[in-house]
Amino acid sequence: MSILVVGSVALDSVRTPFGEAKDALGGSASYFAAAARHFNPVAVIAVVGEDFPPQHLKMLEGFGGVDLTSLERAKGATFRWAGEYAQDLNTRKTLDTQLNVFADFKPRLKPQHCELEFVFLANIHPELQNNVLDQVKKPRYVVLDTMNYWIQGSRKELERTLARVDAVLLNDEEARLLSGSSNIYSAARKVIEMGPSLVVVKKGEHGAVLIAKEFIFVVPAFPLESVSDPTGAGDAFAGGFVGHLSTGKDPRDQDALRAAAAHGVVCASFAVESFSLTRLAQATRQDVDTRLKALRELVRF
Amino acid sequence: MSILVVGSVALDSVRTPFGEAKDALGGSASYFAAAARHFNPVAVIAVVGEDFPPQHLKMLEGFGGVDLTSLERAKGATFRWAGEYAQDLNTRKTLDTQLNVFADFKPRLKPQHCELEFVFLANIHPELQNNVLDQVKKPRYVVLDTMNYWIQGSRKELERTLARVDAVLLNDEEARLLSGSSNIYSAARKVIEMGPSLVVVKKGEHGAVLIAKEFIFVVPAFPLESVSDPTGAGDAFAGGFVGHLSTGKDPRDQDALRAAAAHGVVCASFAVESFSLTRLAQATRQDVDTRLKALRELVRF
Repeated sequence: MSILVVGSVALDSVRTPFGEAKDALGGSASYFAAAARHFNPVAVIAVVGEDFPPQHLKMLEGFGGVDLTSLERAKGATFRWAGEYAQDLNTRKTLDTQLNVFADFKPRLKPQHCELEFVFLANIHPELQNNVLDQVKKPRYVVLDTMNYWIQGSRKELERTLARVDAVLLNDEEARLLSGSSNIYSAARKVIEMGPSLVVVKKGEHGAVLIAKEFIFVVPAFPLESVSDPTGAGDAFAGGFVGHLSTGKDPRDQDALRAAAAHGVVCASFAVESFSLTRLAQATRQDVDTRLKALRELVRF
Repeated sequence: MSILVVGSVALDSVRTPFGEAKDALGGSASYFAAAARHFNPVAVIAVVGEDFPPQHLKMLEGFGGVDLTSLERAKGATFRWAGEYAQDLNTRKTLDTQLNVFADFKPRLKPQHCELEFVFLANIHPELQNNVLDQVKKPRYVVLDTMNYWIQGSRKELERTLARVDAVLLNDEEARLLSGSSNIYSAARKVIEMGPSLVVVKKGEHGAVLIAKEFIFVVPAFPLESVSDPTGAGDAFAGGFVGHLSTGKDPRDQDALRAAAAHGVVCASFAVESFSLTRLAQATRQDVDTRLKALRELVRF
């Protein structure tokens, strides 16, 4: 069972209290693929510019299990994002966004990618997300990520996408904005009425909460003494989540969703241990399994 | 095995986005006792003034299992606290603090209370905490609460108390201030070097983390769709924690500490469902057990 992701492959410039990176490999699709590859092959639907450095391409290719045949190379410059994190790493400021080749990106799926069944619609314009879904023939489980910008500016389009997906990833603030409820459990119930059967609330250093009609599951973040750069944590979580879900029999099964989310926080823990994808790229499946075991011990009582 | 708490019995005036209370029964010792009584008898060492309303005393007496023979009634007015919570209930502003009879409070333990083995030193001046510890003959497990005010203003005295206790309750900010480390795990390791073998990091709506040399345990807050007033949540947590610990064989046993913290978050969940102690007072031991079962299900994967 293979996985499809549509999102960004980007050049990130990030500053945190612990260092900085310039034009490093980033983007939602990169982080997602680096995590999901542990579980099943991943096809990346994205675009880069003529300036995309060969060593970044090499890193993506080096993951193994990542299908880059749909990574378009367009005329112009690669999508660039620059941001800075506050001392506690919980808040960040976007310093610069240059859409570049991403501005005219029209995802066109190759025939073999239209057959893929597990889909992650990373945080891009809901129109593009809808457009990709139109091309997928038999989606079995679709997970959507979004942000305040689309919730406020493209609500109609986002609602149309929401009605077509199985799960949506939101942080507290996005959940409140989308639903109008300040309590995350009430907020999630309202979002569920919009279509998805599952709301995943991302809580950063506090982990994640799955909220469905039938159950609530809380999983903490993996404890780390040193966090370098939180960029990509949410996408790495999604990679572990969708990746593990794609290995099971029934992606709507409660136990499968719980286990998938646990794998998600483990993948996110590697993402934040270094700038860019360095640490996440090094992590082996055995590293993932070791942390998963430790996570079980962490919550046992 | 009985429990001793030294702390405040207060008149609280609280405003939250969901309502307000005026001169309601509050105070760290009240919340603690209301939670700990489910597990073992609790002796309250505190002081109130001449104006302490009879119906508040009746409520405390009505708990059952709470020994009020050391609740001193002094000349003057009862300790008063007034505060206001922000929309998300995560930040609060103290509007007014009137120490009143608490300013001259010198806890003097009755002989039978000097024999008690489980001790909670609620958030009061470290000198008073030390003074109480001096009177306890064979403390088996001592838990300390404190706040920024003492960490900054009475550090020497606080360090002397820290060296004598088994566990300390801190929030993120207090842990950072006390240790100088911004990462809670590094911070906790430094605090452990000051004396306590366990650091309990209180994370409000995100639950709590126990950090010891040998283990880390993360427990989420009990999910609630409606929270009225977070006042007293930390003390109710402490009541469930120390209370449950007092029922076991070895209060230093890892599994005992994990189970105790789980009971702590359950007790805290009742505390925040109403203003003052209304909901916490109504909760039965069966209610506690039912939520504990649900908490287990919440984290299962």
